[in-house]
Amino acid sequence: SAPQDLDLEILETVMGQLDAHRIRENLRELSREPHLASSPRDEDLVQLLLQRWKDPESGLDSAEAFTYEVLLSFPSQEQPNVVDIVGPTGDIIHSCHRTEENVTGEQGGPDVIQPYAAYAPSGTPQGLLVYANHGTEDDFKELQTQGIKLEGTIALTRYGGVGRGDKAVNAAKHGVAGVLVYTDPADINDGLSSPSETFPNSWYLPPSGVERGSYYKYFGDPLTPYLPAIPSSFRLDLANVSGFPPIPTQPIGFQDARDLLCNLNGTLAPDTWQGALGCHYRLGPGFRPDGNFSADSQVNVSVYNHLELRNSSNVLGIIRGAVEPDRYVLYGNHRDSWVHGAVDPSSGTAVLLQLSRVLGTLLKKGTWRPRRSIVFASWGAEEFGLIGSTEFTEEFFNKLQERTVAYINVDIAVFANATLRVQGTPPVQSVVFSATKEIRSPGPGDLSIYDNWIRYFNRSSPVYGLVPSLGSLGAGSDYAPFIHFLGISSMDIAYTYDRSKTSARIYPTYHTAFDTFDYVDKFLDPGFSSHQAVARTAGSIILRLSDSFFLPLKVSDYSETLRSFLQAAQQDLGALLEQHSISLGPLVTAVEKFEAEAAALGQRISTLQKSSPDPLQVRMLNDQLMLLERSFLNPRAFPEERYYSHVLWATRTGSVATFPGLSNACSRARDTASGSEAWAEVQRQLSIVVTALEGAAATLRPVADL
Amino acid sequence: SAPQDLDLEILETVMGQLDAHRIRENLRELSREPHLASSPRDEDLVQLLLQRWKDPESGLDSAEAFTYEVLLSFPSQEQPNVVDIVGPTGDIIHSCHRTEENVTGEQGGPDVIQPYAAYAPSGTPQGLLVYANHGTEDDFKELQTQGIKLEGTIALTRYGGVGRGDKAVNAAKHGVAGVLVYTDPADINDGLSSPSETFPNSWYLPPSGVERGSYYKYFGDPLTPYLPAIPSSFRLDLANVSGFPPIPTQPIGFQDARDLLCNLNGTLAPDTWQGALGCHYRLGPGFRPDGNFSADSQVNVSVYNHLELRNSSNVLGIIRGAVEPDRYVLYGNHRDSWVHGAVDPSSGTAVLLQLSRVLGTLLKKGTWRPRRSIVFASWGAEEFGLIGSTEFTEEFFNKLQERTVAYINVDIAVFANATLRVQGTPPVQSVVFSATKEIRSPGPGDLSIYDNWIRYFNRSSPVYGLVPSLGSLGAGSDYAPFIHFLGISSMDIAYTYDRSKTSARIYPTYHTAFDTFDYVDKFLDPGFSSHQAVARTAGSIILRLSDSFFLPLKVSDYSETLRSFLQAAQQDLGALLEQHSISLGPLVTAVEKFEAEAAALGQRISTLQKSSPDPLQVRMLNDQLMLLERSFLNPRAFPEERYYSHVLWATRTGSVATFPGLSNACSRARDTASGSEAWAEVQRQLSIVVTALEGAAATLRPVADL
Ligand SMILES: [Ca+2]
Ligand SMILES: [Ca+2]
Ligand SMILES: [Zn+2]
Ligand SMILES: [Zn+2]
Ligand SMILES: [Zn+2]
Ligand SMILES: [Zn+2]
Repeated sequence: SAPQDLDLEILETVMGQLDAHRIRENLRELSREPHLASSPRDEDLVQLLLQRWKDPESGLDSAEAFTYEVLLSFPSQEQPNVVDIVGPTGDIIHSCHRTEENVTGEQGGPDVIQPYAAYAPSGTPQGLLVYANHGTEDDFKELQTQGIKLEGTIALTRYGGVGRGDKAVNAAKHGVAGVLVYTDPADINDGLSSPSETFPNSWYLPPSGVERGSYYKYFGDPLTPYLPAIPSSFRLDLANVSGFPPIPTQPIGFQDARDLLCNLNGTLAPDTWQGALGCHYRLGPGFRPDGNFSADSQVNVSVYNHLELRNSSNVLGIIRGAVEPDRYVLYGNHRDSWVHGAVDPSSGTAVLLQLSRVLGTLLKKGTWRPRRSIVFASWGAEEFGLIGSTEFTEEFFNKLQERTVAYINVDIAVFANATLRVQGTPPVQSVVFSATKEIRSPGPGDLSIYDNWIRYFNRSSPVYGLVPSLGSLGAGSDYAPFIHFLGISSMDIAYTYDRSKTSARIYPTYHTAFDTFDYVDKFLDPGFSSHQAVARTAGSIILRLSDSFFLPLKVSDYSETLRSFLQAAQQDLGALLEQHSISLGPLVTAVEKFEAEAAALGQRISTLQKSSPDPLQVRMLNDQLMLLERSFLNPRAFPEERYYSHVLWATRTGSVATFPGLSNACSRARDTASGSEAWAEVQRQLSIVVTALEGAAATLRPVADL
Repeated sequence: SAPQDLDLEILETVMGQLDAHRIRENLRELSREPHLASSPRDEDLVQLLLQRWKDPESGLDSAEAFTYEVLLSFPSQEQPNVVDIVGPTGDIIHSCHRTEENVTGEQGGPDVIQPYAAYAPSGTPQGLLVYANHGTEDDFKELQTQGIKLEGTIALTRYGGVGRGDKAVNAAKHGVAGVLVYTDPADINDGLSSPSETFPNSWYLPPSGVERGSYYKYFGDPLTPYLPAIPSSFRLDLANVSGFPPIPTQPIGFQDARDLLCNLNGTLAPDTWQGALGCHYRLGPGFRPDGNFSADSQVNVSVYNHLELRNSSNVLGIIRGAVEPDRYVLYGNHRDSWVHGAVDPSSGTAVLLQLSRVLGTLLKKGTWRPRRSIVFASWGAEEFGLIGSTEFTEEFFNKLQERTVAYINVDIAVFANATLRVQGTPPVQSVVFSATKEIRSPGPGDLSIYDNWIRYFNRSSPVYGLVPSLGSLGAGSDYAPFIHFLGISSMDIAYTYDRSKTSARIYPTYHTAFDTFDYVDKFLDPGFSSHQAVARTAGSIILRLSDSFFLPLKVSDYSETLRSFLQAAQQDLGALLEQHSISLGPLVTAVEKFEAEAAALGQRISTLQKSSPDPLQVRMLNDQLMLLERSFLNPRAFPEERYYSHVLWATRTGSVATFPGLSNACSRARDTASGSEAWAEVQRQLSIVVTALEGAAATLRPVADL
């Protein structure tokens, strides 16, 4: 009998059953209450997930919660964090808001956590206020250049430019005593800031809205790097933990930021530092004499955060593969939110629940069982730093690395209604294209998701011509440990903005108490058709990966990436390297070898597909496809970059898309003499990537070739 | 049709064709000339291997040489290393021999390399002589305790006790300026030392014999840790290379050692430091007034070694698997010798050539093709530190790690004629037992190799009762990178001594110019029946691993090891750990979980074997068996121990066979207070091994269980 392969009828059935209304109902339930990691409501949702996935009519084969004991950070319940203006006599002459305004009745509940900077240390610094733009290294250097004494000041920074925690790290280097972070209406609201122009009257952020977030530099439980945070695990002494912000930090809304910023004294800030608060931003230090506060008033930032070991659970569910149960298609999203988290993460969880329900129903009816296993995951404590997913990869490293076909992440399913947006490594491009070409795009017209997508994000591929462009995977959600630590081909899927219509850095109520069901229902995705589009896209990808006889991972699509990385390296670094007698020749050869082997493998697949290959032959070939991504992993390449082992996708400091290890090493070596340790590291990094590419090419050769 | 499985007729045929005479002829050719790594004769043997493996009638499917550019160390051809006694006036009053005596006409050729300590630095230290026994840390402490001033002395040490390079490392810590190393007749010749009692009159080492060897601490090419030594690879600056002996070092024969040692002044050395040179060993410093040399004479050690980048090749040959060509049974030995190397390594290479010839002939006749691929390897530059095999694993890390079923090493095939000796990890025990039970032992009587073996090496297994005992794998030959760096189940096979008949630490002419064909033919294995026994054992193991439908790797045999490691930890470390409030409870649980999962997997295999499983089902199960060993690998467990990533078999400083990371960390923490970094490291190591065992158990569970 013919081997089990993708069944287009089943695919059609699944596409049809991925109902927008049910996703909406899921979302309503999921976002009914705040469900911060490890909170009682988070635990309730664990039970909800388990119940759904164990349902005899629509559940999976089995489901289980995996609990870790992880270090979280919370504001004090007794002593709220406060930001005050203190007059010269020591009197508090102005206080910032401690909570967001209760505009819809959902911002006032007891479970709405006060805005705070998770993992920022407690402390009560007080000093003159300065304005430091994004709080980048360059921003603080600029202040220094302007002659502003930073020692002992409080720096007001705005979100964007660098990671949350970096602002405090950069500030502390200059002796700054405390940091405030706000969201400028220019960055999030397309400049709008009045209550009548913001939620609930539009999708924009109300003046009192504050973005919460983790200010921890790394990801995973801070106490257990590389070890699962099971109760018995070794935990670092707090004194040995690195990556927490060094000084007290507190986020505030732009309403409060306006009071501070529009009263600052000092030089006018550079043009690019100006925002939309309706005044000229000055640098400080301190307030102007003719403003609301007396000139020698200071700002006091009182932070009373504390660290706590808490139980946080992942929920895992599995549909056992009929033929190759030891191959896992892993699909996940986090469950925990900052407040109600209707968009982040519940839009994704609502999709997850609908997907698992539709597949579970087919399974329980006996209509269908996939060729490979499908694993669904609901991760805990993502908001604190991808903790649940990271601990999971630490606990089951080998099992996952040996068997996982691909990881699919849908966190925020819908940022906005305009277009699909996919981030992923090259082997997943073709399956995403295949899936999206066959699904109708929401909205007017009769475009496929693919055809709509290509209008917003596209690039000219030397192989395929104009195609939608996939973004690359950073560490913004739970895919990070899978791609960087385990080397599993991964993707992140969402619907997002029309960039010609908004410049908001993210959907405006992100990580605030205004990210509610009504917000989604009224503004982000009325009718839930974009949610449905994401569900169908993800569903089709899951089915294609789990049911296709030949794995739809096109490894030759890495050739384009490597070629473009190589060209970028030649253009951007070639001259510099030549000056230091370092040749890119071996890298050129390695890329060429990869291209040739990948193309030859593609040919062999085509030939085999025309014959009637036996399942073992196809399995061997599929193993080459599945495991290619692993060959780019080198745990010794960047020992200081925790978890980052993928030599192509590790963090890159430069803006040019090229080999990160090489590029970073060049940045550090640039100003040193030939023969320095820094140039030796450039050569080492070059050899590391050459070895990885040559090794990868070797895995693509016919398996019995030497 | 029934799936391809082990064919007992083919096995019988192979056993029958593994001819002792042909092995003898191979050995004669291989050991005809010295074939030091990278020498012209070594290159000739590369061609010989290629020619044999490409032979149209008895060759393999394909064969190829892989060349690396590696850092070797040689004595100067112009300026020989010398050890002189220098009188008070500066005259040389005595010189040690520069070469071994030409007793058989083979010790005098131009290609016989002068005895030297590879990688010892050049230099001409001169000082009073002291005797330092084995040159261990304790030995030098003992000299210090005895009040002997070591600063500026030359230390005479004997082989044994610690690694070669360690003697110089320990010596240098005490200010010693140069080191001599000799082989005491007590350690190698069962006390015998006269020419009439030694080769060519017996198998014992002649008085002029000198053991050469690598004094490098690590393995692999010294300039390219973790990178393959291809020409373009990054190479360490020599200043950054660690692991070379810190001071000039030179090996000498016991004839020369007697002249030095029997004339020493000072306190009588402890009883355990005495040897068989026929005098009372004294500690020095300097010579006694009534001896052959005046009392204030010094010893000058002039070493003129130099480092050189040289090309060294591995030769690889493959028999393509008929059904699962992407599964490799890898069999190898090094090719390079110090001099003629009839025993080391050519006894193994002679077996390798005969094995490949017999299998190649069946292959070319069309009689047989194995289910899985068989890869034969002839490694280069092993004598300098497992260089060829290590570079190979660095170059093809992923490909090998993903696909290699097991690595079989036969270096010195025959140390002596008495019994089989196998070192290996637990999963290979059962296939070695199965093979050896079916092969007749050489020598009188009608015992199987197994039944003979059990008489010499045995243990009482809680599962099986009395069985032959396998040794564990250190880093003595090319299996080291496979087990420690790649986590591939490995074994090393040889025939060896009756320990009741000799106490020689190794066969006496090891690494000398007396290790010749005649030595083997007359003393070690007249008739070559032990060579044949090793060839048959290895051949049977290769066939079983490559042809059996179910992989004959019994992972549940790890349970016994883990249980015994656990018991040893409890006995040896339990009280100490308890004092520091560290519980072994999680380790107990992890071992129990492993035992349960391994047993359950064994049950499922038995059940499946009784049905008619389809090849894909068996492949999935075999993958669990093949990959188990990988789950014990953690590249972040011992970052300073280059290549050592296997958490069960890493180097252990203590004498108790238990978990090495835990045991080593305890040794270092023992004298520190609770709460020290050293005790934190104990807890970290405990968590690392718990995580590894739990992770291993998870890989053994049914693949669709969460
Ligand atoms: Ca952890
Ligand atoms: Ca190397
Ligand atoms: Zn999220
Ligand atoms: Zn978030
Ligand atoms: Zn050897
Ligand atoms: Zn050797």
